[in-house]
Parts: sequence; C-alpha cells; structure tokens
Amino acid sequence: VTLPLGYRYAALYAGIRKDPRDDLGLICSDTPAAAAAVFTKNVVQAAPVVLARQHLKASSGKVAAILVNAGNANCATRTGEAVAFASAKALAKALKTKTKYVFPASTGVIGVELDGKLLTNAVPKLVANLSPTGFESVAKAMMTTDLRMKTAFEEVAFREGSVRIAGMTKGSGMIHPNMATTLGFVLTDAVVPSRVLQRILTVGTERSYNSLSVDGDMSTNDAVALLANGASKVKIEKREVVTFTEAVARVMESLAEQIAADGEGARKLIVIRTAGFRTEADARQVARSIANSPLVKTAIAGSDPNWGRILAAAGYSGVPFDPRRVSVSLQGVLVCRAGLAVEMDEAGLKTKLDESRITIDLKVEKVGSAAARFFTCDLTEGYIKINGSYRT
Amino acid sequence: VTLPLGYRYAALYAGIRKDPRDDLGLICSDTPAAAAAVFTKNVVQAAPVVLARQHLKASSGKVAAILVNAGNANCATRTGEAVAFASAKALAKALKTKTKYVFPASTGVIGVELDGKLLTNAVPKLVANLSPTGFESVAKAMMTTDLRMKTAFEEVAFREGSVRIAGMTKGSGMIHPNMATTLGFVLTDAVVPSRVLQRILTVGTERSYNSLSVDGDMSTNDAVALLANGASKVKIEKREVVTFTEAVARVMESLAEQIAADGEGARKLIVIRTAGFRTEADARQVARSIANSPLVKTAIAGSDPNWGRILAAAGYSGVPFDPRRVSVSLQGVLVCRAGLAVEMDEAGLKTKLDESRITIDLKVEKVGSAAARFFTCDLTEGYIKINGSYRT
Repeated sequence: VTLPLGYRYAALYAGIRKDPRDDLGLICSDTPAAAAAVFTKNVVQAAPVVLARQHLKASSGKVAAILVNAGNANCATRTGEAVAFASAKALAKALKTKTKYVFPASTGVIGVELDGKLLTNAVPKLVANLSPTGFESVAKAMMTTDLRMKTAFEEVAFREGSVRIAGMTKGSGMIHPNMATTLGFVLTDAVVPSRVLQRILTVGTERSYNSLSVDGDMSTNDAVALLANGASKVKIEKREVVTFTEAVARVMESLAEQIAADGEGARKLIVIRTAGFRTEADARQVARSIANSPLVKTAIAGSDPNWGRILAAAGYSGVPFDPRRVSVSLQGVLVCRAGLAVEMDEAGLKTKLDESRITIDLKVEKVGSAAARFFTCDLTEGYIKINGSYRT
Repeated sequence: VTLPLGYRYAALYAGIRKDPRDDLGLICSDTPAAAAAVFTKNVVQAAPVVLARQHLKASSGKVAAILVNAGNANCATRTGEAVAFASAKALAKALKTKTKYVFPASTGVIGVELDGKLLTNAVPKLVANLSPTGFESVAKAMMTTDLRMKTAFEEVAFREGSVRIAGMTKGSGMIHPNMATTLGFVLTDAVVPSRVLQRILTVGTERSYNSLSVDGDMSTNDAVALLANGASKVKIEKREVVTFTEAVARVMESLAEQIAADGEGARKLIVIRTAGFRTEADARQVARSIANSPLVKTAIAGSDPNWGRILAAAGYSGVPFDPRRVSVSLQGVLVCRAGLAVEMDEAGLKTKLDESRITIDLKVEKVGSAAARFFTCDLTEGYIKINGSYRT
C-alpha cells in the first residue's frame, strides 16, 4: 500500500479515556487541502461538529489538519464549544496555520465535560510526533467499542499519473443511514477542486455510510471528511471524474462494510440486496427496513432461515408492492417465490447461514429495474452486554 | 369482575402448535354484535386479515364470533385463503349464523401451510364447550411467546344502567405503532352503533396500540376488534360517548402496557412521557423515537442513567427542537436541564433504575403544550435468545 503523498500522522494517549491506549489523533496535510464533509442530521449536534462546519465555511473548503479524540463526545456540555475552539487554536499555532483550517472531531460519551487542558497540553507532543507512516496509529486512536481498525486504500492511474486514496473510519454501534454516520476520513493526493469534491463525497456517502445500519441509532457527533491536497500534482480532468468517484466510493464502501462486520456484538456481516423496484430510493428503503428489523437480525444470529420476517419487514417499509411478486433468497438459495414458501433443504441452508458473511436478496417482478445494497450485522447477546453498561 | 353480558367462550388444543396447550379460541356473541376493527398496515397481509376485512364490509360491521388460533399465522401460504374461509364457514354452520359474521384471526409463524382440517375438525367440540365463564381460556389460547395472559376490565354506570367492557390481548415481540398491533379483542354489552364504535376504537388505538413498541417490527397478522352486542340494553347517549370512550381507552391502555411489560425478554416496562411540543403528533414522534432506540433500551436494561442516548434519540426523531430547551428526568430525577448535565446522585439513581417500571420524561420549554405517552420495554439478552431460534 502506498499512502497518499503530503500527509503526516500522529497519535498519543492524552488521558481522555480511562484505559491508557491512544485517544488523540492528528492528520496533517503539508499544504491546506481542498475538503468536503457531511455531518450528522441529528438536531443535537456536538461542539466539534458545529465548529468543523463553521471552519469549512470560513475557509471556503480548506483543511490543513484533522484533530480527533475518542473517549468523550464533547456534546451536551457547558464548556464544549470553548474546548473545541481552544484545542483547534492551539493546534493551528503549533502547526503555524490558521485556526479555520483545523477540522475537529470527537467520539465517546455524551454529557460529560471534556477537560480542554488534556487536548491543549498534548498538542506540542502530538505535532512533534508527526510522521508520514503513522496512518494506522490515528485509525487506532479513534476506535471506541471497535474491535478492529478499519482502513481502505486505492491507487488509480490517470493520464497525468497515479493518485492514491486512503480511508480510515471508526464506529460499530449507534450507526444509521441518512447522516454522516460515525467518523470517517478519506485522504487523496489528487488535484480536485472543493466543489467537485463535495459531489464526489455525496455519491460515495450514499453508497456507503447511508447504506449502513447497525442498530438504527444516530449519533450527535458523526462526520465524514474527504481531503484532496494535490500533492501528486495529478489533476482529475472532467472526463476522469467518474473513474475517480468510483475509486473514492469503493474505499468508502469498504469502510462501511467493515463497520457493519464489526457491529457491536456482531458475529456476521449481512449484505442486503434489493432489486426490481421503480426507483433506487424505493429499493434502498426496502433494504433499510430489512436491515433495521431486530427480528431479521436475531434470526440471522441464530442461523434461522425465517424468510417470513424478511417479507414482513419489506412489507412495512412504506414502499408499496405486491407480495405475490416477491422472491427472497438467503445465501443464494431461493426460499420464497411469488410470496410463497419454496421447498428447501433446511439443514443445508442452516449450515450456509453459519457463515460469517450473509447475503439476503429480495426481488420484485414486473415493477422496475432499480436496485440497492445495504450493510448491517446480526443482533446478538453481545450487543446487549456492550450497551447495557457503556457509560458507567 | 363481571364480564359483559351475552358472550360465551371456548378454547382447546387443536394440534396446530407443537406443545400441547390450547391453540384455538372462540368468542361468541348471543346476537350479532356491532363491530369495528383496525388492521396491520403491512402490505403483506395474512389471509385471516384479508377475510376479516371482507366479512366486516359484507356484514356492515356485524360480528357474531371471533375464531382465533395460535401456532401458525396462516400468512404467505398457498392455501391460506381457502383455509381461513373453510374454518369460518364450518364455524358459522355449527353456530347457525352467517359466514360473514365470523371474524378470523391467526398468530404464529409465517410461510408454513396451516392444515385446515385441524380447524374444521375442532369446530364441533369448540362450539360444544362454549361457556359464559371461559373468557380467560381464550386469552390463554392465543398466547405465543407471551409469558403472561393479558386482560383488562371496566364497569361504568350510565343513566340507563351499567355496562361492562372486557379486553384480552396477546403479543410480546414484533410490535410497532401505526398498525392494529398484535391481536386484541374488546367486548362490551353496551348498545353502540357501528359507526360510533369505529371512532371510539380509533381514539383507543391511538392511545394504546399505536403508542407501543417492543422491537419496531410490524406483523402481517395483527388486528384489534371492538364488539358491542347491546346485551345490557343500555344505550350510550351522545353526551355519554366521551365517558364511554375513556373507559374503552383505559381498557386498551392497560392491555398495551401489559404487552410492553411482557416484551420478549423484557425485565422492565418503560413509560416515556414527552411534553411541551407544538402538536400531539410531534410529542408522540419524539417519544416513539426514544422508545425505538436500542441504545436507550439496553441502557435501561443495565440500569445506566445514560441520558445522552435519550437526547440523541429525540434529536433524530425528525421533529425540530432546540436542544438547549430540553430537560430529561429518569424515575422523576432531573438528569438534564437546558440540554446540559445536572449534578446527580448517580448511585441513588442506579438503584431507582433497578425497579421494574421505568419512567422517562422529556420536556421542551417555550414551544407548546402538547404531550404524549409511549410504552416500551428494556432490551435484554433474553430477546435475542427468544428470537434467534423461534422458527426452528
């Protein structure tokens, strides 16, 4: 893997979380990068989300540094805004850049004051530690209940030369579509203007973070940013934008898939594919409804080919369809045709459902040709255990 | 408890479910009763739902008998419609009434053929067993994963005399608002015309089954019916309709609360009260969003006063509000004021959260005066265990 040129990384333990593993990460671009971002749609927004949005606006879409902490969401606290601003200001000073070029991000518990000194005191050491090879250290520092670090990479050749794309993400619970789900940072060394970047990020987000659900909950903190610092000097031409967008979307899809696979307590990744609908939005809505059904997710956890629950979840999605035109397959095995049960080798299918990657296909006949794909995971006792005592 | 006059009941084991406890129930009115019903809004509708709807229409809102089975939903099967119709016809013949006066209902697994002979063969014995005291036997026969039988009663005095209302319901998983959730039968001996009954049922449903959520899933089979056979000869006058409606709603609220308390794997009933919103619909939507959050439900399971999750769930409900005007109380203890943490005795609150009935209050200041109440339950390992292997 070759990382994008012109970025440096650092991470350390700043004392924010109880267990002494890295909880503060820094991503720096040698020159301010063109940037685009999507944020949570929750009406409750954490201080760093508010500040990141302000900074992006003030800088007309430029980011020189991403400062990310785990262990505290810096949300719904008295001092949240002051803490976010002070840490951005201290970092800008140490990096000799402008405060508005700093993109802050936090993840962790809500409603507990974050001690600003922990961040500002750590800044000098963090900056001193910057290294072009520290990519994974940041990806690890922002993990909360994640069991696995999540990264993805692409390198694409264009007429003028090659560009590199690298993504990191965190998140395993509290994940829901239609927001800038969890934290995700995608870096490239291509030359791309900010306004084009925003369109690329929108396409990528729709196919990744907005097609992902672990428990249907939306965080107050989540943000996904895409940075292009141009360090490769390779300019993406108009006719190359589609190819470049596909590469960014592949990185983001991989990140989303890794989040679903690492869902809190999850033992199985579930990929839901819907087809034959009038519009992509319809197809996605049906897939999301199946993905959010606790009954479907527990059935998969138990390797139970209970396709009736899949049909029922599709049926209350809000998308009208004729159940007599629906077929359902599990792991490629047809279990329901024309809305009715198909004879199946139940023992054989149960064995297939013990695998760690589950595919559910739901198809409607004679309506349209739109399809969608959605990622989720099974729902196990582990999810309950993790979330029953996260705060205390 | 005095049961409504003019009804008889019977239940037996017809061999539909594997374990030999009653799975077929019958409620008869001595004369065809005025009736109203609400049904699931799922586009996938079980055969008995389709037939019940047809019969109510054909009979202009008259029901003489409710035939209910557990163990099989009679949904998404090849022979479903024929089975539902044949059993209704056989019952009507045995009761010397019209087929269109039979209200069929089924609950259980989807997509497995229901052997119609099990129903029709059981009809003669079922009719022979009819007794005015068998109310609870039917309430028990329709239980699936329910741990407790659910019934509620009211007796109300009017100018002309007293009337009685008796309700029974079943359901503990797959329950969600905005549908005729689960199965519920409410019987009264008052004299009420069908068209008034439908309005009364709508009010009662909104405050009970539509304010209830266990896991966010909607069934294909669910139906709630309200029967008024007039056996008391007490006519509800126009100016008495409000009092009568309140009594019906109280019965239905009690049934809904019992369903939430008996949620699959639940150890705690959660009552969510929202206040200060512009409209009742807004207040209910916020309450529903909190009720459907797995993170809130697991926190309550773990007696964790994690009010940040409550605020976050309210924040993504789709109802706009200023988080700085929100207060949250748990078990009557203020934990969040103006969107910020309040100093609290955390150990003391944790003890209060160990109780079996949990109250969450969320209030917005300076917006409006509309309030709502919503019932749900905590989410425990038990839910996963029950639903991981329900079918097989």
